[in-house]
Order: sequence, then C-alpha cells, then structure tokens
Amino acid sequence: MSLYPESLTNLIEQFQKLPTIGKKSAERLAMSIVDKDSKSVEDFSNALKEVKDKIHPCKICGNLTEDDICNICKDVSRDETTICVIEDVRNLIAIEKSSVYHGRYHILGGLISPSDNVKAEDLSIDKLLERIDKEGIKEIILAISSTIEGETTSLFLAHLLENKDVRVSKIASGIPVGSNLEYFDQLTLERALEDRREI
Amino acid sequence: MSLYPESLTNLIEQFQKLPTIGKKSAERLAMSIVDKDSKSVEDFSNALKEVKDKIHPCKICGNLTEDDICNICKDVSRDETTICVIEDVRNLIAIEKSSVYHGRYHILGGLISPSDNVKAEDLSIDKLLERIDKEGIKEIILAISSTIEGETTSLFLAHLLENKDVRVSKIASGIPVGSNLEYFDQLTLERALEDRREI
Repeated sequence: MSLYPESLTNLIEQFQKLPTIGKKSAERLAMSIVDKDSKSVEDFSNALKEVKDKIHPCKICGNLTEDDICNICKDVSRDETTICVIEDVRNLIAIEKSSVYHGRYHILGGLISPSDNVKAEDLSIDKLLERIDKEGIKEIILAISSTIEGETTSLFLAHLLENKDVRVSKIASGIPVGSNLEYFDQLTLERALEDRREI
Repeated sequence: MSLYPESLTNLIEQFQKLPTIGKKSAERLAMSIVDKDSKSVEDFSNALKEVKDKIHPCKICGNLTEDDICNICKDVSRDETTICVIEDVRNLIAIEKSSVYHGRYHILGGLISPSDNVKAEDLSIDKLLERIDKEGIKEIILAISSTIEGETTSLFLAHLLENKDVRVSKIASGIPVGSNLEYFDQLTLERALEDRREI
C-alpha cells in the first residue's frame, strides 16, 4: 500500500522528473502544494501550461520569446554588427546578467559531439552564415565552453568563418577572478599564461 | 527589461514560492520546463490541479485521502484500539516509513503556541476525545516533537486524558541512534539518562 493517495504519489513523481529534485525534495514540494490554497495551485498549474504554449525560439537568433522576434533582436539600441555565438539560452542569460555585452546573439542549439551523435548539420550554423551576409556583421565572438565538444565546435566555426569578411574572436580561457591558482589544472594554467596581457 | 519572456518570469516566480527553492533553482527548474515536450508539461500541470481537487483530510483521523476515510482508518488488519497522536501528515508519513507502528492515528493539525496565537480549541482535540469514547480506544501514544510548543501540547493532552480510561504514553526523548553523545544539549542528555532502560 502506498503511503500517499494516488494523486499525491503522481505529483511526487512529476516533481522527481525535474532536474536536481530527488525523492525527499519531491515529497516536500508535493506536500507544500497540498497546503496551498486552490487559487495559488491553479496559478502555478496555468503558469506551466502557459510557458509551453507561448514560448518558442526567436526566428533570428534562437533566444526564447513569446513573439516572432526576441527582445534582444528587436532592441535597436544594441550593436547590430556584432554576434556572440553561444550554445544555448542558459549561456545567453549568463552573459546578459553580467551586462558587459551589448550586441546580438546567435544560439547554436548544441555543440558538435560525435559521442552523442550531434553533427554540425544539427546546429544552427547555416543560419549564422546567412545572418553574417544579410545583416552586415563585422565581428563574431565565440562564447563557447572550453569542453572537448566546445573546442571542437569553436574550431569548426573558426575554420568556416575564415572565408567571411568578419573579425572572429573567442572568449579568454584562464583562472576565474577570485580563485586560487593552485586549484586549476595544467591546461587552464597553460592557457592563462599564453593569453597573458600587459598591465 | 526582464531577461526572460513574461510567461517564463511568471513561472520562475511560481517555482520560487515553493519551499527551499531559491531564485537560481527556480530559473533552472523553469528552463527545464521549456525543454520538456508539451505532453509532459501538461501531465505536470494536471497533477498539480488534481492534488488540490481530490485530496482532503480523512473524516476520522485527519490523514490525507481521496475518499471520505483514509487507507489507514479503513485497514481492518491494524490495531483499532491504539491511537498515535501527531502534529501533522508529515509526521504520519515518517512513522509509517519506519513500519514499526500498526495502530491508528490522530492528526492534531498543529501545536498549542501562544506566540503564533494557536490555542487548544484550534486543534482537533475534541474529535480525539470523541474517538476515545466511540471507538473503545485503550492506548494513546503521544508522538509529538520535543519543542516548547510540542511539550506544551503533550502536557495539555496528558492532563485532559487523565479522566479517560486509557493508557497514555509519549515517545522517548534521547540520543538518536548512531549519534555521538557529545553533540547533544544538556536537556537531551538529562532526558536520556532519566529514561534509561535496563539491558
């Protein structure tokens, strides 16, 4: 016999499907739903459906939006000649939170990964090339993680972009600000030394 | 300008209302909803509403159920003459998980707390007294936390039950199994010594 009534067991299972939510957390979250008033639960329930109904990728850059074109692509105050190429929306949010970049974005929707069977054709690369020509882009910044898949994708893109009349750069590898050198691997130290800058 | 489209911002706020979910976790959970297929999100959304629609307290003991009477009160194989008195459903689940108790329960729905303005009348105490008479209860076990509010409630109940023809006990205070003595406060040690048992 289950400890919980059927509908509660079902809700616990639903919570467990979310990332980082284990059985204990799922039980606690589901019990908190029982304690809420009907209106709050209905709001939550509707918010879930609404996100799925309304949110889709921006036709230009792939960012999440409720319209055809996202707020960043619509924003005329941003630099229209620079595109920052990133893996996914999470990376866009991280960069936007830092408020240091004021150009456009292009979301690849993944990274080249032979082990996961993700090929270059599966990424939004053709669209990027098209944008460079059509939008008169002058600079491309590759802001892609320094994982094996990330480096492979960056190299592939750098090679592709050689024929285009754009400046191509990639974000610096090195020691994070506030971190102690001793905790970082040899490759990171090597990169940090190579990319050293005069002060 | 918000970083997220409106419906996504709303969902993040909804997740933040859940216990132990901070801003970062709420963002991660909301993004995971965007990545799910429509069917999964609809299932989740419906599971929330269903819990609120179907679940209510058992008419006898206050446990959660989808029917009039909960599975534990319905279960004829359980000892019908013993009631374990607890604060809320979370405590019932904890005791059931241990599988050491096979009687009935009675949920008080809180603890006496002058600071939170919870009085004895606000708890399901009249119903407990009624059950003792009607169901021919022989033993009452008070399984209430050893907090100030818990102790107050236990004392109040013990006093009330003096006039009834039932055995009243409360669960032992002491050092948790597997824990080191040195980490516990004086009062816990005092109780553990007082409640010592011969071996």
